[in-house]
Amino acid sequence: MLELFNKFGASEHKLAREMAVLKTCSVLVTGSNRGIGLELVKQLVGRSNRPEWIFASCRDPEGPRAQELKQLAAKHKGVEIIPLDASKSSSIRNAAARVTEQLKGTGLNLLINNAAILRPNATLDSETAEDMAEVYRTNVIGPMEVSQAFLPLLKRASQASSEKGMSCSRAAIINVSSEGGSIKNILEWRMAHIVSYRCSKAALNMLTRCQSLAYAEDKILCIALHPGWVQTDMASTLPEQAPLTLDYSIQSILNTLPNLSEKHTGTFVNWEGETLPW
Amino acid sequence: MLELFNKFGASEHKLAREMAVLKTCSVLVTGSNRGIGLELVKQLVGRSNRPEWIFASCRDPEGPRAQELKQLAAKHKGVEIIPLDASKSSSIRNAAARVTEQLKGTGLNLLINNAAILRPNATLDSETAEDMAEVYRTNVIGPMEVSQAFLPLLKRASQASSEKGMSCSRAAIINVSSEGGSIKNILEWRMAHIVSYRCSKAALNMLTRCQSLAYAEDKILCIALHPGWVQTDMASTLPEQAPLTLDYSIQSILNTLPNLSEKHTGTFVNWEGETLPW
Repeated sequence: MLELFNKFGASEHKLAREMAVLKTCSVLVTGSNRGIGLELVKQLVGRSNRPEWIFASCRDPEGPRAQELKQLAAKHKGVEIIPLDASKSSSIRNAAARVTEQLKGTGLNLLINNAAILRPNATLDSETAEDMAEVYRTNVIGPMEVSQAFLPLLKRASQASSEKGMSCSRAAIINVSSEGGSIKNILEWRMAHIVSYRCSKAALNMLTRCQSLAYAEDKILCIALHPGWVQTDMASTLPEQAPLTLDYSIQSILNTLPNLSEKHTGTFVNWEGETLPW
Repeated sequence: MLELFNKFGASEHKLAREMAVLKTCSVLVTGSNRGIGLELVKQLVGRSNRPEWIFASCRDPEGPRAQELKQLAAKHKGVEIIPLDASKSSSIRNAAARVTEQLKGTGLNLLINNAAILRPNATLDSETAEDMAEVYRTNVIGPMEVSQAFLPLLKRASQASSEKGMSCSRAAIINVSSEGGSIKNILEWRMAHIVSYRCSKAALNMLTRCQSLAYAEDKILCIALHPGWVQTDMASTLPEQAPLTLDYSIQSILNTLPNLSEKHTGTFVNWEGETLPW
């Protein structure tokens, strides 16, 4: 395992070198009550040029697992908690209506489809139809419907932008994928089969490529992002410890996002902006 | 469109050159009442070294769309029609029990997961959660469950084989995929978005790669196969005419199958055995 991640030492230098600036007025992060989503919101509010609007969505804002997010939102103006269950079409539509109302005629610059589930225990032979369907619903159909619902706001932001090319400051869909969904690399097979998860992320990568083709004219940047194998609650269900800290992954991602342009749209990149194979 | 397929002229020569022999005792083809599945059964029975057992499965053998298959089976000994709905777990299990009984202790050499559906009319913006789920159920979860159910028979065939390496004569899972599911090539986007189909085939390619890793020890060859864009009922729902005849595609496939070995397992090949990118 460790050999795979030995390059991280070298990458620390890269991180320090590339402190690019994200100039995004409004962002929505799904699944923001824990893990990568929560850390994204935390680090976004801490930035000097933080977005004016940070819509932090999660399934159950009143539930026990959303307490940290609620405390964060209470402390920071412009952090709005939006109920959004990526597995329910009506919940997605309601969330889009609510964000549209809040934005009062302005658009949404950055949509981060982060909400996802993992069923860790099955081997290929014990994988079930039910888990396959449930994981696909949240990890693929969810991001598709969320993107459809927020597309008018993304288009509005793109049209209103004074930027020439594509960027996360103008209008972008970032689908949080995984190198576990790279059909070529198929990271960590021996550790975990997680076929329902891998199939969902390969399909999410396809969705991203389709979105990049469909929304090229609207100058909406579409990226499949591998955040690294990060120490989260989700990763802790796997038999080996993830090598990347949340803090490091999200710092890297927030430094990578401003460097993405039209030459990256429809590609699969990791937390440092390096291209991954499908 | 035509430019893409101009290479077919040259390929005719290749076809004539490579008349390799498929020595398979038993084969199961899903979705065999029409299109690619039906033509596979037709051409298999017509071969001089035809398989002893050809299990031709379809959803509704008593329905009006299975008449041609029924007539074929009535004429040829060893062609057994098996009811199998790839979207229903219980139907898959029943089919496996029935084939196991017929084979009387011998194994199944070749499983061709061909059954699939296409919802042609949606653009990315009008794609629905229902169609996404339904297409995934039949095109991905179906082949997964069919492979799980027939795995004991494939293992039995592999163990009983006198061949050294992997082959379609020994034991193989051929998942009929599509270059429309190649995330890199994303064939014919301008003609049809068919996002539910593309996402399902990308996920099926991932499933194939997972199967190749899980079943390498059992020496079961696992291949994702693009049959070409073939003139079938399914293809006729698309706005442009498919360039390949059924006859040509299936002849090519039946000549390609015997040339596949362990060096191909876990890869994505077209009707002529050429590797495609994920």
